[in-house]
Amino acid sequence: MTYRATTDDFQFLFDHVIGYDQLPETELFADATADVAIAVLTEAGKMCEDILAPLNRNGDLTPAALENGVVRTSPGFSDGYKAIAEGGWIGMAADPEYGGMGLPLTLQTAVNDMMSASCLSLQLCPLMTQGQIETLEHHASDALKDLYLPKLISGEWAGTMNLTEPQAGSDVGALSTKAEDNGDGTFSITGQKIFISWGDNDITENVCHLVLARLPDGAPGTKGISLFMVPKLIPDADGNPGEPNSLRVVSLEHKMGLHGSPTAVMSFEGAKGWLVGEPHKGMAAMFTMMNNARMGVGVQGYGVGERAYQEALAYAMERKQGRTPLGEAGTGTIIDFADVRRMLTQMRTELFAARSMAMSLALAIDMARATGDDDWKARAALLTPIVKAYGTEVGMLVSHLGVQVHGGMGFIEETGAAQHSRDVRVTAIYEGTNGIQAMDLVGRKMMDGGEAAFRLLDEIESQAEAARANFPNMSEAVWSAAEDLRETIEWMVEQSDMQDRFAGAVPFLMGFARVLGSHYHLRAAIAEGGKGPRSELARFYINRLLPEHTAQFVQARTGAAGLYTLSPEDLAS
Amino acid sequence: MTYRATTDDFQFLFDHVIGYDQLPETELFADATADVAIAVLTEAGKMCEDILAPLNRNGDLTPAALENGVVRTSPGFSDGYKAIAEGGWIGMAADPEYGGMGLPLTLQTAVNDMMSASCLSLQLCPLMTQGQIETLEHHASDALKDLYLPKLISGEWAGTMNLTEPQAGSDVGALSTKAEDNGDGTFSITGQKIFISWGDNDITENVCHLVLARLPDGAPGTKGISLFMVPKLIPDADGNPGEPNSLRVVSLEHKMGLHGSPTAVMSFEGAKGWLVGEPHKGMAAMFTMMNNARMGVGVQGYGVGERAYQEALAYAMERKQGRTPLGEAGTGTIIDFADVRRMLTQMRTELFAARSMAMSLALAIDMARATGDDDWKARAALLTPIVKAYGTEVGMLVSHLGVQVHGGMGFIEETGAAQHSRDVRVTAIYEGTNGIQAMDLVGRKMMDGGEAAFRLLDEIESQAEAARANFPNMSEAVWSAAEDLRETIEWMVEQSDMQDRFAGAVPFLMGFARVLGSHYHLRAAIAEGGKGPRSELARFYINRLLPEHTAQFVQARTGAAGLYTLSPEDLAS
Repeated sequence: MTYRATTDDFQFLFDHVIGYDQLPETELFADATADVAIAVLTEAGKMCEDILAPLNRNGDLTPAALENGVVRTSPGFSDGYKAIAEGGWIGMAADPEYGGMGLPLTLQTAVNDMMSASCLSLQLCPLMTQGQIETLEHHASDALKDLYLPKLISGEWAGTMNLTEPQAGSDVGALSTKAEDNGDGTFSITGQKIFISWGDNDITENVCHLVLARLPDGAPGTKGISLFMVPKLIPDADGNPGEPNSLRVVSLEHKMGLHGSPTAVMSFEGAKGWLVGEPHKGMAAMFTMMNNARMGVGVQGYGVGERAYQEALAYAMERKQGRTPLGEAGTGTIIDFADVRRMLTQMRTELFAARSMAMSLALAIDMARATGDDDWKARAALLTPIVKAYGTEVGMLVSHLGVQVHGGMGFIEETGAAQHSRDVRVTAIYEGTNGIQAMDLVGRKMMDGGEAAFRLLDEIESQAEAARANFPNMSEAVWSAAEDLRETIEWMVEQSDMQDRFAGAVPFLMGFARVLGSHYHLRAAIAEGGKGPRSELARFYINRLLPEHTAQFVQARTGAAGLYTLSPEDLAS
Repeated sequence: MTYRATTDDFQFLFDHVIGYDQLPETELFADATADVAIAVLTEAGKMCEDILAPLNRNGDLTPAALENGVVRTSPGFSDGYKAIAEGGWIGMAADPEYGGMGLPLTLQTAVNDMMSASCLSLQLCPLMTQGQIETLEHHASDALKDLYLPKLISGEWAGTMNLTEPQAGSDVGALSTKAEDNGDGTFSITGQKIFISWGDNDITENVCHLVLARLPDGAPGTKGISLFMVPKLIPDADGNPGEPNSLRVVSLEHKMGLHGSPTAVMSFEGAKGWLVGEPHKGMAAMFTMMNNARMGVGVQGYGVGERAYQEALAYAMERKQGRTPLGEAGTGTIIDFADVRRMLTQMRTELFAARSMAMSLALAIDMARATGDDDWKARAALLTPIVKAYGTEVGMLVSHLGVQVHGGMGFIEETGAAQHSRDVRVTAIYEGTNGIQAMDLVGRKMMDGGEAAFRLLDEIESQAEAARANFPNMSEAVWSAAEDLRETIEWMVEQSDMQDRFAGAVPFLMGFARVLGSHYHLRAAIAEGGKGPRSELARFYINRLLPEHTAQFVQARTGAAGLYTLSPEDLAS
């Protein structure tokens, strides 16, 4: 059970797929040349291979536990966390003014990919902090920034995100946690929050909770929600952790996977908090954190998939089989079997597609920030739900196939294959279920009448056109799938009844991802001149997997017809 | 977490889908009228609801454990087992001469479905015994039958199946367990076996191991393997359990799920055994057991899916949401959301398709036995790998969606949704991975040039033709998908290089199942006259899911091209 950092893959993506060279051409990222980028990733990769990857099993076998009100983290996690913090990997994209490295999010995304592959449970802690850093950068007062950002960026303090309550999950607006003005610039926060990832730890010297709560004059629903910083230990005059705040971990959840990440029920009992941003504008601020986190979760998904793939491939190459179809010409191991190769090749191609999309999204966010260009912003907004949902679906599929390649041994916990499948499962659920991502895609992200999507389709089709002479079959397949997607988007934006859009939103998103994945694969084949392993992978994805888009778009365009004809009672009988 | 027996579904299948009325027209099953059948299933259903279903969580929370060499089963499993045994459910299809009920396998399959849904870990024990009973009925000497069958049928003794060794999994022929003739009609068995389900227990008074081993003159590979009965306690002159045999449980596996089922590493150390069938013909005898078990495992798969579906539906109907798209007209719970309905409806339709296929297979086996007709035999052989693979894929998909419908709560073990997903995972692996099922389908099961499959397609097309006037859209979709399947089968049987068949075998099998599932759904709609919930479910399956067959058959017909161009090293880089 080892992990090999995927630096080569990033290099290829930078050189040939995502257009990385645009970044150092901007003033903001002038220093982040491709050479610097690869040097940074090489260093992060070493940490992942040597320090984080060996911790992954510890988290599963010795889950985080609540002992006398204090969270005890899994063996070795403290050292792993310190390596992440001391490497500067938490604040690598943060503002240098507060101690960050000011590197592009594109690089942070690549590092998060490798950290997720190495030890997802642990990586979730800095991921939460990164989201908090970005939220504070955008919305907090200077006083709060000065106090919190340096500690969060250095990793001395960790950040969490407190949205969910027992009666308010996807329906955040139903929350009942209260905030009362103390009249001294602070607020008193009271309520219970659930599913708080890394709600506490015994590693950092403080834990900073961003909490959604309602002020007495807050309207019902999402419009009356405000955001507060509620630290575990209240900073003293010097900014050092002082008195304990009135909050506590009530319990930790017993989960299917991700055992090393303490998922807390938190109780705030008149805890002291500071307003972040304007009153009643908490949801807007929280969306900053959530968009970052949504991309981050997509990356977590295929990151785990990468690990599952590497281990399955290694197993397939070492598991001997008496007689294989290749006979003397083969390896004598199960990788000689066509069905095993089919599974491994699919795993590899799905990972490439998901990684290309996520890195393209990160680049779009960086370019939007560096240039202020609205097209880049719209591109980023469009890709976010796709990366979150497809990235996590790929993570689940690849981990699932990883178990299958291991055969009976895959079901035995000792091999670690099952852990990936259990760990990654939550990524399709948290930060907005994949169904919610799909609704976002066909709803909010199509409010421009499909304009951002059509711009992307123009790029896809023009690349396919240009490649037609050298790659007639692949180009035609991608071009014609893009046309199908265009027609499906046109159908979507014509539906005024949102139920008709939502009913097929998930198949639509997955079909969209198939087209986009094929586009990146074709680009890889072009870069190789059609000869080489990446071209063969492109042929696999485009010839064997892209055809799935047809059925996905049929589903997408069927609308809600019939879905509501069946009553809940009909479904039960 | 409750379970409602699906007796109504069986009634509908008997009356309208699988042609149950053919059974009581045969001499062998003259007494098993539809009324008797439903009475039997109603009684079994009660046991499943009241006694077995509440045990399921116990198995997960308190796994079977090895204590001082003795397996301790999960709390309540002993009572559950006794209810199964005393109800006569283990030997319900067994020969009345030895105490069985002589009922059709069709009914046993329905009972196994409900028992799997109630408590999969426990149900696996009688399933193994049922396979052993059938093997002994077909292959054992009268002396062995007289001694073992009554005890196995009554459930006083349990049966196991010992094939796998560390170096011999799917590659059974590589086994190295030895058998030596003691010259007194007994043999001495030595070797280690792994993954032995219910390898021991503290419930039954004896455990009977069917063990594959090689005699000194046995050829290498599968042709030199013999089958032996090796009891844990050697029966004395009166047939009562006597001296302990030289065998032991070395350890139990720590698995992803199915914790209530003890999966043993068994050591046979010169254990006394009796030959079952002819020397060196062990694999043939074992195939009797495996074919039965393959159908049984397919049933386990969708059985667990049924439970996951019922619980997800109940959750969706009770989980409140502040604002739903249906407003006042809705339930105010998450079932009002189109995407939740899409998931639940897909779950329901997949379960119906899988259950229809499995029950049709069981009926074909019964009819083959009752009539000796070769067409029925060929039908049964054809359907076996499809039922095993599709039934278990449905189980995994439905359990997966069950977690998704639960949202964050699905990842928390307390709801039980995650357990179904973990438990069912092994069904795609044991008794031959689904990849092996698919290879069986395109290989052995197409050695007739596709004849058995074409006969089934003729039935599918003639039903579609007949329904064309009343159901033009659905009929056309099913008919044309059947034609696609026909062409794909023709392509398959033309490939002389088996690698080309095997490379797309899994997508082929899944596409075959889509066509077949649509056929049964159409039949349900016809039975309802097109009006009613089953017709709406048919429309969902045929309009939204059947289109997937196109991409599946494209994959199937792509052959091995390109799969071997990539070396294992290419895949690793």
